[in-house]
Formats: sequence, C-alpha cells, structure tokens
Amino acid sequence: MMDAGTVSRNSLPMIERIHTVDVEPDAEEVAIAGHVHEIRDLGGLVFLIVRDREGLIQVVFKEEREPDLFEAVQDVGSEDVVRVVGEPVESGQAPGGVELVPHEYEVLDEAASPLPLEIAKDVDVDLSTRLDNRALDLRKPEVLAVFTLRSKLMAAMEEWFDEEGFVDIKTPLISKGGAEGGAELFPILYYDRDAFLSQSPQLYKQILMAAGYEAVYETGTAFRAENFATSRHVSEIAMFDVELAYIEDHHDVMDVQEESLRYALRAVAENAERELDLLDVDLEVPEDDFPRITFDEALDLLETEFGHFPEDPTDLDTKGEKLLGEYFEEQGHPAVFVVGYPDEKFYYMQDVEGDEIASRKFDLIYKGLELSSGGQRQHNVDVMREVMAEEGVEEANFEFYLEALDFGTPPHGGYGLGIDRLLQKVTGLDNIKEAIMFPRDPNRLEP
Amino acid sequence: MMDAGTVSRNSLPMIERIHTVDVEPDAEEVAIAGHVHEIRDLGGLVFLIVRDREGLIQVVFKEEREPDLFEAVQDVGSEDVVRVVGEPVESGQAPGGVELVPHEYEVLDEAASPLPLEIAKDVDVDLSTRLDNRALDLRKPEVLAVFTLRSKLMAAMEEWFDEEGFVDIKTPLISKGGAEGGAELFPILYYDRDAFLSQSPQLYKQILMAAGYEAVYETGTAFRAENFATSRHVSEIAMFDVELAYIEDHHDVMDVQEESLRYALRAVAENAERELDLLDVDLEVPEDDFPRITFDEALDLLETEFGHFPEDPTDLDTKGEKLLGEYFEEQGHPAVFVVGYPDEKFYYMQDVEGDEIASRKFDLIYKGLELSSGGQRQHNVDVMREVMAEEGVEEANFEFYLEALDFGTPPHGGYGLGIDRLLQKVTGLDNIKEAIMFPRDPNRLEP
Repeated sequence: MMDAGTVSRNSLPMIERIHTVDVEPDAEEVAIAGHVHEIRDLGGLVFLIVRDREGLIQVVFKEEREPDLFEAVQDVGSEDVVRVVGEPVESGQAPGGVELVPHEYEVLDEAASPLPLEIAKDVDVDLSTRLDNRALDLRKPEVLAVFTLRSKLMAAMEEWFDEEGFVDIKTPLISKGGAEGGAELFPILYYDRDAFLSQSPQLYKQILMAAGYEAVYETGTAFRAENFATSRHVSEIAMFDVELAYIEDHHDVMDVQEESLRYALRAVAENAERELDLLDVDLEVPEDDFPRITFDEALDLLETEFGHFPEDPTDLDTKGEKLLGEYFEEQGHPAVFVVGYPDEKFYYMQDVEGDEIASRKFDLIYKGLELSSGGQRQHNVDVMREVMAEEGVEEANFEFYLEALDFGTPPHGGYGLGIDRLLQKVTGLDNIKEAIMFPRDPNRLEP
Repeated sequence: MMDAGTVSRNSLPMIERIHTVDVEPDAEEVAIAGHVHEIRDLGGLVFLIVRDREGLIQVVFKEEREPDLFEAVQDVGSEDVVRVVGEPVESGQAPGGVELVPHEYEVLDEAASPLPLEIAKDVDVDLSTRLDNRALDLRKPEVLAVFTLRSKLMAAMEEWFDEEGFVDIKTPLISKGGAEGGAELFPILYYDRDAFLSQSPQLYKQILMAAGYEAVYETGTAFRAENFATSRHVSEIAMFDVELAYIEDHHDVMDVQEESLRYALRAVAENAERELDLLDVDLEVPEDDFPRITFDEALDLLETEFGHFPEDPTDLDTKGEKLLGEYFEEQGHPAVFVVGYPDEKFYYMQDVEGDEIASRKFDLIYKGLELSSGGQRQHNVDVMREVMAEEGVEEANFEFYLEALDFGTPPHGGYGLGIDRLLQKVTGLDNIKEAIMFPRDPNRLEP
C-alpha cells in the first residue's frame, strides 16, 4: 500500500510580508511587497513609494548607508513588483507617517515601459482611454477602492439575505426566450439551435416560488443587447435578484428591499472607511423610511415643481427620475419608491384592486437613478394567459413557465437590483462603466 | 412642497404563518401555509398533509367537529396552496408528532390536475422525465434539500474567503476568445460581431493579480460547448474561482483550497443536518491533511493496484480518477490532490524547476471526481510568448492579457472549482444534472 501524501507539503508559507498599512513606526524589521508606485531620485538618495492593496509606503535608499541596495535600486522602474525587508522609522514627510530603511531589496517582476497610462499621477484621461487600458487603470488606488468597496457591499447584502433564510440560487443564463421579448436579446448558437442570453432570472425565480422555495436571491448576470450610448447602460449587467412568497402585496417586497439596502449601506459606511475616503464620498445611510409615492404623484410633482412632462406618459424618463431623485435627496431621502406604474405591458404583474390603471409594480430611485424594478407578480395563470393574448405576447415561448405556475403557486413578488448602478451611485462615479471591472458595451468587447 | 411618502406603508405584515417545523404541540393557535402534499379521505375524516420549505404537518378535518371546513376541504386537490389556522395537538401517528385541528382554512391558489409527476409518492422515474418536469420535481423535499444545502455550502465558502480578505469579483461572461482555445466555445452574435461565452475567468483573475488585487474569488458561470453525454458534464457550469498573489508555489494555492473546502464541509455538517438526513447522507468532513501525490505516483498506483493505464499518458482519465478516489477514500481521505501534471498544453502554468516534465498544475479529486484544476501561473510574459509560439497558440487572441501581465505581475496562482460537481458529491447524487436546478446540456434548453 502506498503512503498517503508522498509529496512534501510546502514548508514555506506565502511569500513573507505584511500590508503597508500594518507597518508601525516602532516595529522591528518587517517585509512588504507591492508595485513601485513612484520613484524619486535625489542624487545620493532614492525614494521608492511601494503600493500594495491596502496603501503606500516610502522606502529610502541612501548611497552612504546601504551602497549595495542603492546600486541595485538604480535599475528600478515604475510598476516593477518588489519586496523590501527593512526597519520602519517615523517620518513626517512619508505617506502614513512611517518610512522603511531597507535591509533587503528584491525585484519579483520587472514591468515593461513606458506605461501607456499613468498610475500614480493624477492626469486627466478620458474614460475611453482608461477603459482601453483597463488592466493598468484598475491599479489606481481610487479605482481599486471602488472594487474592494463593492466586495464589502455584496458581502453585507448577501449576509442579510442569508440570515433572513433566503436560499441563494443559480438560474441558467442560456435560455430559449426572455421575460420581456426578443429585440434586446443576444442570440447564441447553442449546438445546432438558436438560443439567447438571459435578460433576467424572473421566470425561474417565479417557478421556484411555485415550487415552494419561499424566498430566494441570486447574485447573477443579465444581458441586454440595446444599442445605447449613455452613462447608465451596459450590455452585461451584474444583478441582484430577489423573490419571496406569501406576501400580502408589493409593499412586503419593498420592505425587504428597503431593509436589506439600508443594512448593506450601513455596513459599507462602517467597514469601508478607507475606500470612502479615497473616493472622497460622504456616504449617507438612509435611516428614515424610504418615501413611497404613487406614479401619479410622481408625474404631478415633476409637472408642478419642474414643469417636466415625461415623453411616455406610462413611464418616468431618465430626466424625470433624476429630478425626482434630487428633489427627495434634498429632503434627506436619497432613496424613493415610485409605486403603481400603469398596468400595460406587464402580463406578469398584479393589478391594484379597484384601480383601473395602477399595477403593483414599483421602481426604486436612488440618488436620481433607477436602481431596480419589482412588484407583486400575477400568480393566476388564467389571468396571465388572457393578458398575454390581449397584448400579443407569444404564449408558446412561455409555456414552460405558465405550466410550472399552474400547479399551485403562492402569492409572491420580487425585484431585480442593478449592482453596477448601485455601486456607481454609492461611490459617486459619473459613468456606470467605472463601476464595472471589464465593462461591455456595443463597442467594447475587450479587455 | 410635497409630503414625503404619501403612499401608506403596508399595515399588514407578510401573510401570517409559521413554518411547519416550528409548530409545537403545546402552542396556542398557529397559522401555517404550504402546498397540499397528500390527501387522505376516510369518510367523515380528511387528513391533509401540508408541505412548506421546512417540513410537513398533518391537518385533521372532522365532519362532526368542523362541518363547514370539512365541506370546504372536499374540493381540495394535490399541490393546492393552502393556509390553515388551527390548534396544534400531540399525535403519535402524525409526521413530526403533532397535528393541527383547523379553525380556518383558505385556498390561496388551486393547482391544475392531474400532475404530470408525483411529488409525494416515491415513484421511480427516470432522470430525463424528472428534468422535463423539473418545476414539479424541484418540489420534492429531497430535491429541495439539495438546493437549501447548496445555499448553506456556498454561504460558508464565501464567508471563509471574505474573512481571509479575498475580494469578491465579477468578470465578464462575454469575451473575444477563451483561455484554452476555440472548439468548446459557444458563439454569440454581439451586435454586428462574433464573440464567445466565457469558458473560465482565469485570464481576468490573472490580470487582477497583475493589477495588485492580491487575492480574489468569484462565484460565477462557465460555458462549455462540448458534445458529451455523461453523468458529470453540463454546458453551463457554476464555478467558484480563486486567485492569489505572493505565493511561493502551487502548494500555497492548495492550502487555500484545502482549508476553505474543509471549512465549508464542516459548516454543512453542522448547519444542514435536516438536509443531510433527507438525502440519507453521512457527510464525513476531511479533517486530516489532504494527501498530495505526484502525477507519476498516481500513474504508478493505477498500474500496480488496478492494472489501469489511462489512454492519454499526460492526463488521468475518468476511470483513473474514480479508482484513485476510491483508493484514498478507503484510507479515510475523500479528497486527494494530484500534483505536477506534465507541462505540455499549459502555456499559462509554471514548470517545476529542475524537472523537465512536471508543471505546477494540480487537480483535486473528491470522492473519485475531478472537482477543480489549479496551479501556479507563469507570470513571465516572455516565457509565455515562447511557449505559445512552440505550441502554436494564436498570440493575437491573448494580446490584451499578455500586455496586462507585462507591466509588473507578482507570482500568483489559483484554481476553479466546479460547484455543481462538489454539490453532487456532497449530496451523493448519481448525476451532476440533479445538482443543478435547471441544467443545460446538448439536448436540454428548457425549462
């Protein structure tokens, strides 16, 4: 019989180092590693600013004091990956108030030069150039901060739902059709057949409500083949989807969205101080109830306060959402629900009883941007078939869904929240593409 | 100025109810809701077994005791969604040892009949029929248990990485090419261009290592256009991807995978007792170090112990992995790493110094199934370009990646773990498709 595990385990741990932020002025010798952020050569003195994920540290090479290391550091280039062992000493001028006197210096990887994009200097570069060089752009501390903040935001969001007993699900991204029709779908060649990329997991979430899963969430992806050129659209969208059963009405869904969003924002305010500082954001957590206004009230308000009339009277336009958002933000409400959109177009949405127009659909507007849509769904399949016939929706595409819901479905509702938009607004970015590591739009398929 | 929030908040909470498992025999009146799992009509007596996400409860309707409700329940059908308010009483015969004496009975939604698939009865149905009727199949308590267990498994896995400071990332699923070439890629029509569905986030994870993100993970999706018909392949795969920098070698990556997997399995063993019971699984948490054997040792072992020779001498075949898995499982090791696969084919993998054959690639075999591949990556772009030229890999497809890595990249490695395979093995299922809510294969695009 063979002895289990003849390969010796790694006797070495990870490359020894601590993060730059953890270097204390009174510490013994420490090791740090990172990219060379800045080089200042003052003759017999070289200042190296080394950057890791958590911050910056200055290393001072003196020709007199450490001639060999000083000699070695003459070849250093911007963005080289280096490791330095040294003694921390207090320094008023250095970032973080501490600098390293080097004892060992090692280049782990040399960077090519010149850099097509400046990392350290705050040069004004247009977004398109930044995205063309996204691999380098992502190195900037304020860009990295966007994505470490995102990670903390999502961890908190998922934690809320885990603790409330929601089941974390995974629905398919390759599908036969879409919830809202065909024009905005990306076609795939699926073996020898046509298929499409999913626009929304809504139909699957609803099937799971019929199947008794009671409450689910999904951190997923949605695809929209729209031919846009705006600051708020992309072709591949990170989505946070929620669905829950045994609701009285759409207000239960809004309650869930409101509480979970407040929880996630609170977590970010508490755990992402460094990121918020770097991004120069003063994040206000909406502790008060989010206002809930009707669609009609929203239209009235836009007319009376701003003289604005949305082009399509059954929907708010981008300008309307922006004005509405600003109006409520000034009153201390960064988030507002608009409730009861007209019931046309939404075969899957419940109407409000005794109201000939309003559906149980709501949108959440956060800092002037539509962040999510949701509502109470229609769970009576006969009613859905009627509406589909009236609206000319091709029932055949939805047969698997209608059949699934026909075998006993509790009242339910849900919403889909655009994660990229949320991140954009939380971090105060101008364009949604800045809130996505590698965004996709009609012209951008790389990197 | 308009008053914020003119829509009155919902005065009602969610539909009032508690879960069936929470009904105590000595409790006051309670409300429960769920699907009608079973109906037994004994003349003046009707037993209704109601099923919710957490279990079953028996409701007893007596003609003598509650004639109106007894009358109403005559129309009940299998899988109707009902709500019952009643008084819990102890009962030796009832599931859970408690039954309800109904005070109120309400049908929230009627189910169509007949059901194309039995939910309550343990009828032997083939997998294909089950998947054709997946919306109903998902209602079975033992199927639901697979996916609530999955949710707990993933929560624990992500928790481990969050606490270790890994950044939760989102990489694009629409891409220009793939890490391993073209044949297994699904083509998309991306506006007026050709694009592909991502096979792996590896290139993007590596770019993030170059960009200084240090340690990342992603719960994502991978697509494989393979034309298979096995119990372990699907076209759309749930993946858990990990990458970390400043490693000494691939053993650091294995350490991360080993510790995180042990943590997640331990969490499931502790928090998913009900699911494991329903699935009749006695989950063994591998508390000992996972054995790490070389590829050569694996070949030797297969030859000497089983007389088995894999067809391709540079890889283990399915049968080899199965035999190897069983061999180590018998020794109390459900998980084993095979380390140092021959270095052909992997331009992105580092070689082992002083070894002409072995790369720093490893696979994890869990209960006889390859669960993940990983290793230390090559971060020297010049070396990669050489290997690509030798192996005939089209460099143009990878230019964005090679360029990104050229500007200073720390030593790094990572792996991609198949979540569906992990879930399949943890829950003891025969086929990977049972571990996916809505699986996709060459013949299955719906539901």
